[in-house]
Amino acid sequence: MLPKTENSLPSLVEIIQRTRNAAIALAKSSNTVKNNALEVIAIALEEQATLILEANQKDITAANEAGLPTALIARLKLDKNKLNSMIAGVRDVTRLVDPIGDRQIHRELADGLVLERRSCPLGVIGVIFEARPDAVTQIAALGIKSGNGVILKGGSEAVHSCEAIAKVMQNALESLYAQQGGVSPYVVQLLTTRAETLAILQMDKLIDLIIPRGSNQFVRYIQTNTHIPVLGHADGVCHLYVDEFADLEQAVLIAVDSKTQYPAACNAIETMLVHSAIAAKFLPSAMKALQVKGVELRGCDRTQKIIDISAASESDWSTEYCDLILAIKVVDSPSEAIAHITTYGSKHTEAIMTSNQAIADQFMADVDAAGVFHNCSTRFADGFRYGFGAEVGISTSKMPPRGPVGLEGLVTYKYHLVGKGHIVADYAGANAKTFTHRDL
Amino acid sequence: MLPKTENSLPSLVEIIQRTRNAAIALAKSSNTVKNNALEVIAIALEEQATLILEANQKDITAANEAGLPTALIARLKLDKNKLNSMIAGVRDVTRLVDPIGDRQIHRELADGLVLERRSCPLGVIGVIFEARPDAVTQIAALGIKSGNGVILKGGSEAVHSCEAIAKVMQNALESLYAQQGGVSPYVVQLLTTRAETLAILQMDKLIDLIIPRGSNQFVRYIQTNTHIPVLGHADGVCHLYVDEFADLEQAVLIAVDSKTQYPAACNAIETMLVHSAIAAKFLPSAMKALQVKGVELRGCDRTQKIIDISAASESDWSTEYCDLILAIKVVDSPSEAIAHITTYGSKHTEAIMTSNQAIADQFMADVDAAGVFHNCSTRFADGFRYGFGAEVGISTSKMPPRGPVGLEGLVTYKYHLVGKGHIVADYAGANAKTFTHRDL
Repeated sequence: MLPKTENSLPSLVEIIQRTRNAAIALAKSSNTVKNNALEVIAIALEEQATLILEANQKDITAANEAGLPTALIARLKLDKNKLNSMIAGVRDVTRLVDPIGDRQIHRELADGLVLERRSCPLGVIGVIFEARPDAVTQIAALGIKSGNGVILKGGSEAVHSCEAIAKVMQNALESLYAQQGGVSPYVVQLLTTRAETLAILQMDKLIDLIIPRGSNQFVRYIQTNTHIPVLGHADGVCHLYVDEFADLEQAVLIAVDSKTQYPAACNAIETMLVHSAIAAKFLPSAMKALQVKGVELRGCDRTQKIIDISAASESDWSTEYCDLILAIKVVDSPSEAIAHITTYGSKHTEAIMTSNQAIADQFMADVDAAGVFHNCSTRFADGFRYGFGAEVGISTSKMPPRGPVGLEGLVTYKYHLVGKGHIVADYAGANAKTFTHRDL
Repeated sequence: MLPKTENSLPSLVEIIQRTRNAAIALAKSSNTVKNNALEVIAIALEEQATLILEANQKDITAANEAGLPTALIARLKLDKNKLNSMIAGVRDVTRLVDPIGDRQIHRELADGLVLERRSCPLGVIGVIFEARPDAVTQIAALGIKSGNGVILKGGSEAVHSCEAIAKVMQNALESLYAQQGGVSPYVVQLLTTRAETLAILQMDKLIDLIIPRGSNQFVRYIQTNTHIPVLGHADGVCHLYVDEFADLEQAVLIAVDSKTQYPAACNAIETMLVHSAIAAKFLPSAMKALQVKGVELRGCDRTQKIIDISAASESDWSTEYCDLILAIKVVDSPSEAIAHITTYGSKHTEAIMTSNQAIADQFMADVDAAGVFHNCSTRFADGFRYGFGAEVGISTSKMPPRGPVGLEGLVTYKYHLVGKGHIVADYAGANAKTFTHRDL
């Protein structure tokens, strides 16, 4: 049963608590119930397409009037095609394996005493993102599939679009709920003000995970202003090391792809390290190919002696440009490349080009990063490309979940222990019974 | 090769950096090399038993002179038996499955482009513990087995014992290393001052995980004074809910075991919740059995109407006594019990006594805790009892690792991606190649 309508507006804490309560029920819902809710949402998004596109038009008009950057307006803009792919994305989530209730351990500890470790939802997830309104449906779908309540806060530029999309989803859940039960509409909540964002960062009793999606500065702000666990990464300073045993033609292609295929992505490279033995041969052709794509190159002294580019300063080695700029450094050994990455890298994705297996093995073992790549582009570091079916974020923390994180990142586990009156005193001291520890 | 002997003493950062370098080599060591190092340590501990016991005697003398509590002196005290079980513990670790190099994902993303997710060590772990010198060998063994460097800081009361044990271990590794290579003695480092402890909490670039073992206050201090991930728990406010459908005789035994089998443990119960329908029958016999064991009982109003005990105040519901004290509250339903646990519990271990499967299922699903137990003692929440072969800590965080954590807690993973010049541009746009996403 839905809570009664209140005369006064609920407080933020009440809103989050409602989502928490709804999530407790959702945690016990079957895959069928969850997929049914997602299908109902997909249908409603189709039916209400005009309403959503009209709301989006309001955001676009306001963004144009405010003179916001073209790239931001492009991300903000919805059209029939983009909406269709959002809807397809919701239906894709129904095809993912239910991540809840997975029995990871099943073990008899002693006669009649059985331990199970079962996956369960985290509870309530707060997702704070910038301009892209398509994130609303994606995150809501992943949240519902994994049994979690989702608190969404979109960028202020996208407020009309986000409100329209959230309303369509909530109405769809509400009428399904009224007809046949299912998933409470309170599992998804949209916040619209910055004050609310700041407030939820303090609610570590009510929110179990924060996923920030946005600029480095934005993510770092979130990380330093909450005690709630944060899934994400502030920096993506990735490197490509071109070893003396690299296929140099291939290395040029990989350098171009890793830098230019989507330069604003966190998995684009910022620095290329080049072995001195092949630098004179490699750098001129790499320069040519990168400059054709509009990349500005900045080199160390030794690089500048080979190709005519501007100088890299110390700060270049630790900068994530998010732009068509690449720093280049000549090194004398794989170890020097690894040491440079250890000093300046952000533990995201690091690649080596070499045909020498021993050197590749050394690089993959000694480089401390979520992804260590051999003879391929760093741009493959992505949940969809890894085949996770979804990506809720990319983590550069050392502890799991690490790297591109799919639904797995929205799930935890509980230990269930069932006995028949078992007490520990029987398994201690002189005549202690012994544990069987037999996996079932 | 070991670093050259320095004329001046190395700084703390240099010490930790040495351990970090040693850990990078250790991460690539085979299970045989690691087990060999552990066996050499075990032999050295046997050979140097007298030296260790003499050092321990110094700590005991100092502790007696300082008038430290008897319980602390008991934990501090080593004798031949305790030392033998420490040595047996090191050998037990050799029999654990190597947690490193486990291939968790093996997937072809596209023709010739293969993804692997492989377990790897965290890097360097800082373990800060109070009086128990036996923790030194246990943690060092688990650290070596999992390929991590270990920085140990023992309590000041145990300084002579810890120094002696650490020296024996380091000397054993050093002579093995000099003879045939293996594991650098720098993988284990002992710190002895509080100033060093405070300093390492700031070294988030050099230390990957902090494991504090000690009082709630101590753990909370660590948690709030570092950006390094912390494995542990500040509180263990665990509950036993005796439902109206409980076997009351069994419930008395479980209450006694959960409270008294080791009252200072984090998995001992602090509050017992009793269904009103059986309270009048259950509470007198529970009182008798608990009072025989010396437990002081504090009850809510309704409890006090049934048995003659002192009153529980609001603060009792959130207190971890670590002592023979138990708060008791009468509730009218499983939902009220769950709500109480949600408000006051610390997400550690929560148990229900009932013969009603539906109520048990509700309790296990709706209680948010690392362990949810049915008809057994909360004292079973322990890595050894769960059959993990070791316990590095118990975590009450919602994110994994959660609950009792074995070697798994000292391990993370990396994604290895190996291609043949693959670029993302080929998998995007109009004539995009498709991913195969085929598990190998």
